[in-house]
Parts: sequence; C-alpha cells; structure tokens
Amino acid sequence: MTSAIKLAIVGVGKIVYDQHVPAIAARADDFSLVATASRHHTIDHIPGFTSIEAMLAAHPDIDAVSLCMPPQYRYAAARQALAAGKHVLLEKPPGATLSEVADLAAFAAEKGVTLFASWHSRHAPGVQPAKAHLAAHVPTAVQVRWKEDVRQWHPHQDWIWQVGGLGVFDPGINALSILTEILPSAMFLTQATLSFPENRDAPIAADLHFQDAADIKVHAEFDWRPTAQQGWDIIVTTVGGELRLTDGGARLWINGAGQALAQEAEYLSLYRRFAALIRAGQSDVDVAPLRHVADAFMLGRRKAVAAFYD
Amino acid sequence: MTSAIKLAIVGVGKIVYDQHVPAIAARADDFSLVATASRHHTIDHIPGFTSIEAMLAAHPDIDAVSLCMPPQYRYAAARQALAAGKHVLLEKPPGATLSEVADLAAFAAEKGVTLFASWHSRHAPGVQPAKAHLAAHVPTAVQVRWKEDVRQWHPHQDWIWQVGGLGVFDPGINALSILTEILPSAMFLTQATLSFPENRDAPIAADLHFQDAADIKVHAEFDWRPTAQQGWDIIVTTVGGELRLTDGGARLWINGAGQALAQEAEYLSLYRRFAALIRAGQSDVDVAPLRHVADAFMLGRRKAVAAFYD
Repeated sequence: MTSAIKLAIVGVGKIVYDQHVPAIAARADDFSLVATASRHHTIDHIPGFTSIEAMLAAHPDIDAVSLCMPPQYRYAAARQALAAGKHVLLEKPPGATLSEVADLAAFAAEKGVTLFASWHSRHAPGVQPAKAHLAAHVPTAVQVRWKEDVRQWHPHQDWIWQVGGLGVFDPGINALSILTEILPSAMFLTQATLSFPENRDAPIAADLHFQDAADIKVHAEFDWRPTAQQGWDIIVTTVGGELRLTDGGARLWINGAGQALAQEAEYLSLYRRFAALIRAGQSDVDVAPLRHVADAFMLGRRKAVAAFYD
Repeated sequence: MTSAIKLAIVGVGKIVYDQHVPAIAARADDFSLVATASRHHTIDHIPGFTSIEAMLAAHPDIDAVSLCMPPQYRYAAARQALAAGKHVLLEKPPGATLSEVADLAAFAAEKGVTLFASWHSRHAPGVQPAKAHLAAHVPTAVQVRWKEDVRQWHPHQDWIWQVGGLGVFDPGINALSILTEILPSAMFLTQATLSFPENRDAPIAADLHFQDAADIKVHAEFDWRPTAQQGWDIIVTTVGGELRLTDGGARLWINGAGQALAQEAEYLSLYRRFAALIRAGQSDVDVAPLRHVADAFMLGRRKAVAAFYD
C-alpha cells in the first residue's frame, strides 16, 4: 500500500459538506484531509484557514488540493497551488473562461503536477455502461431533458446568477459532461436559444441543437423554472433500439429493460480517479463540456423572459 | 522547384476578390488556382461551380481548398474537403463554434492532411518585429483600440449581424489574433461588456478586460459605431518604454521611433505559410482568438444600445 495523499480543500460550501467530505473519508487509503481554506466555513476537526496562502504556508506537506469555490475565483487559487507544486482537482466547471483553463493545463504540465478538471456526473453508475452500449449500437438521435427547480437545488446562491455563474448551465453542464462521454463521436452546436430573466445576468433556460459529423441530431432542453416537471434524462435512439439514462445517470434502461448498476457513488469514483492520475503522473483536462457552453453563449439567440426572484 | 499546389476557392465574395486572388496570383510558384465554388459569384477565367460537391467531382486533381464563406457555413464544406483528402485553409474565424473546429482538427489529423486556421492579421508586417521586441522587453499593460465604421467596412453584410456572425468581433478578432501572437504569456478574460443594438443579434461594441498569469492588464475596446474615431491600434507599455502597433499591424513605433517594416502583404504571407504547412505535412489550428471571443460571450455582461440600421 502506498501512503495516503495529503489533501486540502479550498472553498468550503454545500457541495463540500454533501459530497467531498464523505467521499474523501471513504477513500482513506488514498487521501488524508489535512486542512481547509475558506473565508467563512470550516470542517469539524480539520485545521481551517481563511486563505490558501496561509494554509499552504502552515502545511507545506500538502500534496494536493481540491478547489471548490465558485468558478469565477478558481483560477488564482489554482495558479497558486500549481506554483507550489501541488496536484489540483478543479470542481466543475473548471473555470470562468476556457482560456484560463488552457493556461492552467499548460502550467501544470510545466510544473510536472497533476491537473484534474473533474466532471462528477461522468462518474454516475449508468454512464460507462451507456458508453459501452453506444459503442456497439449506433445512435441516430438524442433527446436531453435536464429540468430542475432552481429554488430547491440552488436556494439563494447568488453567484450562480451572476455573470460567470452560468445560470441553468450549472446543472446543464452535467448533462453535457455525460453526453460528451457516452456519444461515439464529437458533437457541435448548430442552434441555441437562451432565456434570460429580465433581472438576471445568467439564463434560466436553454434550448440547444447539436449535430455531429455523422449527422446525429442532439436536442437538449435545460430548464430551471419552478414550473417545469423535474428530471435529468438522456434518451438515445439507436438503430433498432432505445437507451434511456435517467436520474442524472443513476439509472439505465435499454430497450425498456432496467439495467443492474452499481450504487450511486459519483464523488467516491471521482476521488479514485484523482488518486490514480496523481500516482500515474498524468493530467485530465477535458474542456469539451465547458466549450459547448461557451459555444452556446456565442452562437445562441437571447430571449428575455419574466424576472426571477429567489 | 516543386510543382504548384492545385488550389480551389469556396465562397467567393469581397475578401476573395480583394485579397485571396491577388495573393494567389503573386505566389504562382506555390499555387495554381484551378476552380471555384460559390452560389452567386465566379472569378474571371477560372472554372466556377455552384457547389463544392460538383467542383470536387469535376476536378479530382484539386490538392487544396480555401474556405471563404461566412463561418456559419464553413464546417460542412471543410468536412467534405477533408474527407476527399484535400488540404484546407479556413478564413478567419475558423468556424461558428469552437467545438466544430476541434472536430475538424481531429479529422484532418486522421486523414493526414493539412488544416490551417488562418489569421491574416498575424501576417501584418509589424507583428513579428513587435513579438521579438516584447520577448526582450517585459510588457506591463496593454491598450487596444479597434474602431471602425461598420457602414464603411461591412456595408449591407447581413450575415455579420446574425447569430454566428460575431458582430464587432469580426474585426475585433483580428486584434485578438495579433495580441495572442505578440504577448509573451497567455491572457484570459476577467470582465467584459458587450453592447447589442436592440434590433440585432450581434454586438456593435465590446469592452474587454484581460489579465495574464504575470498580472499584465489588457484593456481592449472594439467599436463599430459610425461616430467612433477610426483606428486599429495596440499600445503596449513595457518596463521603461512603449510599443505602438498601429494601422492593424502595418506600422510599428518603439519609444516614439517609427520602425522600418516590409510592405503590407498579409495574404501573400498567409499563402506562403499555407504552402509551407502542406509541404511539411503539418497543420496549424490555433483557436486562441476565437476562444477569447467565446469567453467574452460567456462571461460578458450584455447592454442594450440604440438600434442600428444599415
């Protein structure tokens, strides 16, 4: 057994308490959580600092950091951690711009450390079985419905509505991270409509049309409005059949038959992958999901819709 | 002397008549223009077809194609040309989305042919001397003013105002292509405001703030409004001096002294590079300028401004 990787978390909030902390505890052979840095929050029994500088100075033995703050603040912390020779996990999305992520990838390579742009939904239990099925059964069309009530899932998270917070693409990018993993060829956007509440700088809904070189049509609907029926479903029509990946990748149906899957354990799988990358001396910085979002903002038509109040 | 590369042009319009045709004629040792495909326009004395399919069928000896149609229509033509084993030059911007350009780059590599995402402004005579100067004189701040009257430069070009036409980023991306060539480190956007005429789907002005890892601040103003004083200038403050690259890269001033430069010959240099890439069996697909544009649409705040009528 190799020794545990000394890990720190920067940016402590809901996703850290809900997912990162239990996953790291469950992977105690791989990781030992030694410190956190966060302006307002701490984790019980773990030394907490209010800045990454103070944390790195007090704990020079840290091997790796997980960056979980909103994407608008991630670049500076990532650059500091990489400069100090630490391995870095970026929560999704990996940054506020594609260009900063490209810079981080180049810098990690220069420093010889691991950079992992993580996409937790790719670790949902149905994703790899779906990918394997679609490698053998040619898709002809894809329908994506990613609809959730923002009031339930992101109550009073102001950053998510601000420029750079991406609005409905914050959950929608999870669908894009699954699609870009399971489809056998690369897709690109051909048409998009983004609905912006008249009092917000981020979209509350998006209607996206993609195709790929083989002319497969992909239609995705993302909706955050409280009136929408909730669901996180990808339905792929294949030659002679249908694949349904539902509940955000947690359940899989092939030609109507439910498939036996492992228990949901996205973050556990994600940290297993981070440890494997560190031990292999590799990076994994796939920006495809964020690239589709940027393309949607660039190519999308904007529609003003009713104001949204939290 | 190697034999001339048999070249075809797809999408005949203003930029082809003004720039491509004379440049190709001047590089007769490298290229021989053998056909065109365009729905409405032809070039005197050159066989013209109304579709790329018809052209490739009638002229199987074509080695390479230059794709000069609006970016919204470029992917399908590029994919067809690459599938037929032709080398491809993409006018700027290389596509309507970053994802489609990534797909084309992968496909060109698979087919073993050259893909050249061209940025003509990088071939302006002041660009390489400016790059050499900035490699030796550390920049501390950059001001970009790229202001032109859209009525003078893009009269009645409806596509440029449509979704995917990029609006003021159509000239602005030329500034970004120069910046990303001459600055010693990679920059990324931190803040942006895009001004959209209330009757248009593309911005008429953009105000952009970038920084880089070394904390150099870059401020760029793009403006298409007829009231703006025209100019295409990049002013770089360096430690102990100033570099001014003006007239879109055609003139260079260092600490106030005008520098002796070659004659402006952007497209001639661009076709020289395309020939060199083909002969070396290489591709050159740098998406950095388009990536900054996509980042600006994703991160930028939108402001509604007065309607614009052509």
